[in-house]
Amino acid sequence: RAETARAAEKINTIEFELDKPKVVTMDSVDAGGKKVYCRCWKSGTFPLCDGAHVKHNEATGDNVGPLIVSGPKKE
Amino acid sequence: RAETARAAEKINTIEFELDKPKVVTMDSVDAGGKKVYCRCWKSGTFPLCDGAHVKHNEATGDNVGPLIVSGPKKE
Ligand code: FES
Ligand code: FES
Repeated sequence: RAETARAAEKINTIEFELDKPKVVTMDSVDAGGKKVYCRCWKSGTFPLCDGAHVKHNEATGDNVGPLIVSGPKKE
Repeated sequence: RAETARAAEKINTIEFELDKPKVVTMDSVDAGGKKVYCRCWKSGTFPLCDGAHVKHNEATGDNVGPLIVSGPKKE
């Protein structure tokens, strides 16, 4: 099998909320706040990032990482 | 090959920013604002969701979806 990326694989391999047909997460950030969200579906603290993307990237040659969202400046 | 989830596949199959060793996205939401972020790495508008997770889920049997982040209420 080639080393190239494949399009037809499940990515939710931690099987997060498999009872749901689609995992849509609603969250919010406060003024002055910041959150780090997982986009690799390997985190033990999903939907937050716990650094598991590092191992995923090493194992697969991928280059994925988290999304960091800040709220507006605190007044 | 079994239907079960596999752990050792790249998920960034759109090859988003392959020049970077790790794609870490920094973003912010305003007071009263809301953004819809892609977590399937298939979006044509990455890092935002364009609905491509639907096709990914159909093709793979996965159940992934976006992250929706709201800012604090507008004063
Ligand atoms: S653990 Fe998934 S992006 Fe960090
Ligand atoms: S397009 Fe990727 S989560 Fe919607």
